[in-house]
Amino acid sequence: MSLLVVGSVALDTLKTPFGKVKKALGGSATYFSVVASFFTPVRFVAVVGRDFPEKHINFLKSRNIDLKGLEKAEGKTFQWTGEYNSENLNEAKTIDTRLNVFANFRPKIPRSYVDTKYVFLANIDPDLQINVLDQIKKPLFVACDTMNYWIENKKKSLMKLLPKVDALIVNASETRQWTGEYSLLKGARKILSMGVRSLIVKCGEYGASMFTKKSIFSIPAFHLESPRDPTGAGDSFAGGFMGYLAKTGNTTESNLRRAVVQGTIFASFAVEKFSLDRFKSLTWKEVNKRYSEFKKLTSF
Amino acid sequence: MSLLVVGSVALDTLKTPFGKVKKALGGSATYFSVVASFFTPVRFVAVVGRDFPEKHINFLKSRNIDLKGLEKAEGKTFQWTGEYNSENLNEAKTIDTRLNVFANFRPKIPRSYVDTKYVFLANIDPDLQINVLDQIKKPLFVACDTMNYWIENKKKSLMKLLPKVDALIVNASETRQWTGEYSLLKGARKILSMGVRSLIVKCGEYGASMFTKKSIFSIPAFHLESPRDPTGAGDSFAGGFMGYLAKTGNTTESNLRRAVVQGTIFASFAVEKFSLDRFKSLTWKEVNKRYSEFKKLTSF
Repeated sequence: MSLLVVGSVALDTLKTPFGKVKKALGGSATYFSVVASFFTPVRFVAVVGRDFPEKHINFLKSRNIDLKGLEKAEGKTFQWTGEYNSENLNEAKTIDTRLNVFANFRPKIPRSYVDTKYVFLANIDPDLQINVLDQIKKPLFVACDTMNYWIENKKKSLMKLLPKVDALIVNASETRQWTGEYSLLKGARKILSMGVRSLIVKCGEYGASMFTKKSIFSIPAFHLESPRDPTGAGDSFAGGFMGYLAKTGNTTESNLRRAVVQGTIFASFAVEKFSLDRFKSLTWKEVNKRYSEFKKLTSF
Repeated sequence: MSLLVVGSVALDTLKTPFGKVKKALGGSATYFSVVASFFTPVRFVAVVGRDFPEKHINFLKSRNIDLKGLEKAEGKTFQWTGEYNSENLNEAKTIDTRLNVFANFRPKIPRSYVDTKYVFLANIDPDLQINVLDQIKKPLFVACDTMNYWIENKKKSLMKLLPKVDALIVNASETRQWTGEYSLLKGARKILSMGVRSLIVKCGEYGASMFTKKSIFSIPAFHLESPRDPTGAGDSFAGGFMGYLAKTGNTTESNLRRAVVQGTIFASFAVEKFSLDRFKSLTWKEVNKRYSEFKKLTSF
């Protein structure tokens, strides 16, 4: 079924204990769509500046991503500069954020996208996320991301958004800060009471948990020999999760669980190389091999 | 089958974001044996001082723990003072350590213990751990714990010990510091190459992984509504792991996996109350309920 992402495209300059890159392709919509495109074509709404390299456009096109919704605005592309230290690869330290054209991003949904059934709202202003949803006719499954900044500064809008959302995908640290609860279970209950149907809490290299009012699902992450760059792991997770759901068209609990596993598998690949490089060579044979390794890894 | 623990008995004074206790019953051998006693009788080698309260002795006796190996020495019992902050319940900050009689602990294995088949060497000087093993005739399965202090200061002894050990149980942070590898998989490979047959890496509230040369097993932790005191969670894990193995007398890969799950279940109970209080009321009905919840929690 049709799948849409609304989010950011960025040029990332970053350093990890394993190397660095300068103005590499990044952004939430980018990671999400490239991963989701392994499952199904993806509709894409984002903005770039005049400086955005044509080769990146060509890469996205080559991945079966529909760029009708990609706006090219006067100015420069969103740039993020950050680093990860060797103590904790789970959290980036932001050194510089230049929103550039992303600062005035007002998502315009092309007419041919309004019938989209599966929608991912990457981390943007919740008012814009609501505005996007208002433009979609009858979505079947909506997932969204958010961040502490919106939790602190746009709580009301977030409260308005959550009842329209089937799966909120956030980090463990965000869950704790948001709810003031150390226990993720207690925090999850608080967030579920705000009306969102399920909450997926990502714990980086330690796995992920999905909470609904009726059930909990927890999995570890896939152990990697050489993690290199965690940037985009969360959006790759969302891409695997939503891509799998859109492809299978099934949102039962057991299928949501398999989608979480697919998210985990794709996030593990994202981390193996800088930027989106791992996905340039990734094959379904490798994905399926890792899925069955993961099944063995966790069975008892 | 018979099960022996050699380790510490302590009186813990500690604070967590959820409360505090003063001179509460603690120590690695204590947590281990109380948990393992749910599965099988436990032989106990440790030392306490003259100040050690009789009520704790009675509690241990009531749990089917054989205290023939508990030495009562001149002086005071080992005292530990520490705290956990609300940012990270996984790691304690030690405020004060008074080894007292534990400083001169030289484990003496009672003659009736030398035929023990399952042995857990809690965190003590690796020279003493080797000395204990030399006193045991033909152990079937030996597990041990260690800590950064020994890794730094007694590396040679540790290297001599490891080939005699079937399962080394350590924390994620210890694995990283020991091996200098961020990747737990890479670190595990390094440790396995030192001759230990399996390595279990505990990641606190995020679960645990077991590595052998041939396989990896990973599970998340059980989500708790109200974690209160993580002290002793690691030794409770070891107690569940070894207790299950000793009871079933089976050390195949699939049974080791189930033992890791039992360890996880018992660690989750340990954390629910201060000191060993949770085990005073814990029933097998509750344990079995949590085991089946855990099975559901992780299945896909």
